[in-house]
Amino acid sequence: MSKSSAGNFLEDFHVGQRIVHATPRTVTGGDVALYMALYGSRFAVQSSDAFAKACGYWSAPVDDLLVFHIVFGKSVPDISLNAVANLGYAECQFLKPVYAGDTLSATSEVIGLKENSNKQTGVVYVHTSGANQRSEEVLRFTRWVMVKKREEASIIDGQATPSLAPFVVADDLGHAVPELHNYDRILAGSRHLFADYAVGESIDHRDGMTVEEAEHQLATRLYQNTARVHFNAHAEAQGRFGRRLVYGGHVMSLARALSFNGLANAFHIAAINGGRHVAPLFAGDTVYAWSEIREKAEIPGRKDIGALRIVTRATKNIASSSFQIEDGGPDKPGVILELDYWSVMPR
Amino acid sequence: MSKSSAGNFLEDFHVGQRIVHATPRTVTGGDVALYMALYGSRFAVQSSDAFAKACGYWSAPVDDLLVFHIVFGKSVPDISLNAVANLGYAECQFLKPVYAGDTLSATSEVIGLKENSNKQTGVVYVHTSGANQRSEEVLRFTRWVMVKKREEASIIDGQATPSLAPFVVADDLGHAVPELHNYDRILAGSRHLFADYAVGESIDHRDGMTVEEAEHQLATRLYQNTARVHFNAHAEAQGRFGRRLVYGGHVMSLARALSFNGLANAFHIAAINGGRHVAPLFAGDTVYAWSEIREKAEIPGRKDIGALRIVTRATKNIASSSFQIEDGGPDKPGVILELDYWSVMPR
Amino acid sequence: MSKSSAGNFLEDFHVGQRIVHATPRTVTGGDVALYMALYGSRFAVQSSDAFAKACGYWSAPVDDLLVFHIVFGKSVPDISLNAVANLGYAECQFLKPVYAGDTLSATSEVIGLKENSNKQTGVVYVHTSGANQRSEEVLRFTRWVMVKKREEASIIDGQATPSLAPFVVADDLGHAVPELHNYDRILAGSRHLFADYAVGESIDHRDGMTVEEAEHQLATRLYQNTARVHFNAHAEAQGRFGRRLVYGGHVMSLARALSFNGLANAFHIAAINGGRHVAPLFAGDTVYAWSEIREKAEIPGRKDIGALRIVTRATKNIASSSFQIEDGGPDKPGVILELDYWSVMPR
Repeated sequence: MSKSSAGNFLEDFHVGQRIVHATPRTVTGGDVALYMALYGSRFAVQSSDAFAKACGYWSAPVDDLLVFHIVFGKSVPDISLNAVANLGYAECQFLKPVYAGDTLSATSEVIGLKENSNKQTGVVYVHTSGANQRSEEVLRFTRWVMVKKREEASIIDGQATPSLAPFVVADDLGHAVPELHNYDRILAGSRHLFADYAVGESIDHRDGMTVEEAEHQLATRLYQNTARVHFNAHAEAQGRFGRRLVYGGHVMSLARALSFNGLANAFHIAAINGGRHVAPLFAGDTVYAWSEIREKAEIPGRKDIGALRIVTRATKNIASSSFQIEDGGPDKPGVILELDYWSVMPR
Repeated sequence: MSKSSAGNFLEDFHVGQRIVHATPRTVTGGDVALYMALYGSRFAVQSSDAFAKACGYWSAPVDDLLVFHIVFGKSVPDISLNAVANLGYAECQFLKPVYAGDTLSATSEVIGLKENSNKQTGVVYVHTSGANQRSEEVLRFTRWVMVKKREEASIIDGQATPSLAPFVVADDLGHAVPELHNYDRILAGSRHLFADYAVGESIDHRDGMTVEEAEHQLATRLYQNTARVHFNAHAEAQGRFGRRLVYGGHVMSLARALSFNGLANAFHIAAINGGRHVAPLFAGDTVYAWSEIREKAEIPGRKDIGALRIVTRATKNIASSSFQIEDGGPDKPGVILELDYWSVMPR
Repeated sequence: MSKSSAGNFLEDFHVGQRIVHATPRTVTGGDVALYMALYGSRFAVQSSDAFAKACGYWSAPVDDLLVFHIVFGKSVPDISLNAVANLGYAECQFLKPVYAGDTLSATSEVIGLKENSNKQTGVVYVHTSGANQRSEEVLRFTRWVMVKKREEASIIDGQATPSLAPFVVADDLGHAVPELHNYDRILAGSRHLFADYAVGESIDHRDGMTVEEAEHQLATRLYQNTARVHFNAHAEAQGRFGRRLVYGGHVMSLARALSFNGLANAFHIAAINGGRHVAPLFAGDTVYAWSEIREKAEIPGRKDIGALRIVTRATKNIASSSFQIEDGGPDKPGVILELDYWSVMPR
């Protein structure tokens, strides 16, 4: 029984290795509708062809996180099928809009490798890139995962820890956004534009969303993400949590959709500086979110948009309104996600 | 924490006020597929481009209730986020077919305002209109909701109760239906046409459909309806019902899909005279439906179609076959919905 | 209350009878996205327009089993609404690719009829055919179901048991596959092509997938399959299993999607020789699968593809790795499906 893959172990990676991931994927209006049904996203640019065209897009671009999840999903069978933990991601840039009809494929390069002192696991760092059917890069990101070794006795050569950028610089933002015109903030749902947000400002997104097993399974399969912990109640009954774990990206999308209430004009994720899954989410839990404006930046050459650096935190089973920013850091009980990203917003 | 909206309260409305609702929404084949997966609808006109074209449509029109739910959903953040109850709707007309690719947007006008004697709540009456990307009105309806006051002490000026039409007149029906030709009743699933139905006739739709939390959440998010009671198990555990409530429109769509068995050629909802949610529905409940033909009408100028006025009642956890029309009125225990609508049917 | 259908009983069938099934159905990118979300299928040809075009298709063809389920679903209201059991299917051939935008319709011919000795039930054999909007046959299959008699006293005339082919011959395979060129096995996810598989070889597909009520209901409604046992918890509480039963075709699609891990290049089901649902599946169960290569065949006139005859077995709540082929026949406890089919694979 050898033709099926058990995934790669630490021994199977080396720095400089390039991996072409399987199963190119055409994104369609079907994916867009499912994404809306799964999260309830309401950003006008992604919701309406008419609105997007008026702004300067060809049609409504596909939600940035849907693109992220699909590209990420392709990397799972090769990179993280034997992952113990997804440790983090950084240096994520959205480079071109993706439209319904585009086909996404993904490749990764191993940029770091570090055995843990227990000799049973190690950390693999990869740079993953997503491209469309014209081989144009639409997305890139770095992630690092803790994976198992196949055998404790194996020697891991060529270890290296890459240095990662703490955040994406403003020059690298906005490439996926055409020059904006006719952005109608009334139709978009908020009068607040770039100038109206202040560094240090907090926004409670108010609403909560309870997650069902069927929902996160549908989502994660839609992304063709094969990580076993999300799908197999029979095996996970014997696993670390005793049950299925919700894909971390599902939490990102929920928090982002909730953030519409307060950030309706932050219509595009230009970059993700860092993401950290602080605690696991399970079906039956209710997700809330609040955000803090960490930084504001001009984008060189762009008079139409500015960049807001936003830290969105998601909680489970604790209303976001119960958090005071001064005492509600990412490690306060109940926080499950800290997402540090750049959004662009009309000026 | 002020940029997010807590919704409008009674004090925020005045008669004559016009509200442009956020987030225009392009309807796609993805929405149509999800709608089918959620309800199992089988009306041939909406299911098949080939069938619809043969009849005179450009392609399969989007299900009428899907259009209704999307337009309704847009009005929720502005009109009913602080609703205590959705009291009813009336004067609903479907004016033009909506096709995949069309973009829907919604506006409302406040047409009535009435404070309740308890000084804590009041009723807001709105006329809501949905339009496509060419600014053609595709749908209009009136609804009234009980909303909270922000403060008991507030004075509500300009109170007025509108008079509502008890039903839509036959002249106003069928505008969304092209002149029908080549309607194939074998392919459509029933040999019964307009002439075969009699006023007073009852039809048991027989089947039952059990609703899951994931299903009604997917549906309600698909409509971008943000009413909190549908999504937040954590907060609703402390709420009126102790659990999430199924969106009333979900029941309408279930009952309509079940009604195919007996009303297969009632392919289009031309108007809704009135809708009343008699009791709440929760996940785990099973919905049944039966219908009564209340009236038949000729449509001026139309030889191809006639209008049937149908009252469909949905029940929960009681088979529709157990109802006798003479003793099964809308207030018999187990009834959850009474929907009085005009359908058109080929002659 | 007579306009709704209670379905056909044994008395309603006769050999030679032709039935045009209701509700033609246009398949769209929405259906394809939902199918992916429901099963997580990863075959490159069906996932990517760009990949499929490079191979010689017009665009990505719709998954073969999605076509099967839709055509099968159309036959349910007429053939098997009063089925006691779906006994089997055979002689299933996929004859033409189906693309998003095509409209499927279905007809059946009764080819056999046999009353059971208990006089309460009997077996109906039908040959069902699915066609596209150009009346081209895209799929045909034979199935036989045990259905109830309306009355025990009825006399069933004209009984006949058809002889069924034990398997589809190689000459009849591959009609739905264009001459393949530029098939990229790296992008497709496996280096193993036709020559690499040996008769008698077993493949453990490793992963397990837990099924939720919402998932199988969404799937079965998407196929417009109205069989009551899948949807009505209220009635099924008094039924044979005390709960809703998962549609057997849902298991087929799960097993097929799982089989990607080990059969990534078996991208097309050319024919189904036989299918048997050995035991029922319920929500909460976890499905695993393994496959055995039973036969290899050249396809006359095709140098580009060869045919693998594969027997895939699905289990519930038992990891496929725990089965040894020598003692794990279809009747070992835990097996729920045995599917004997021909796949084509690039050479």
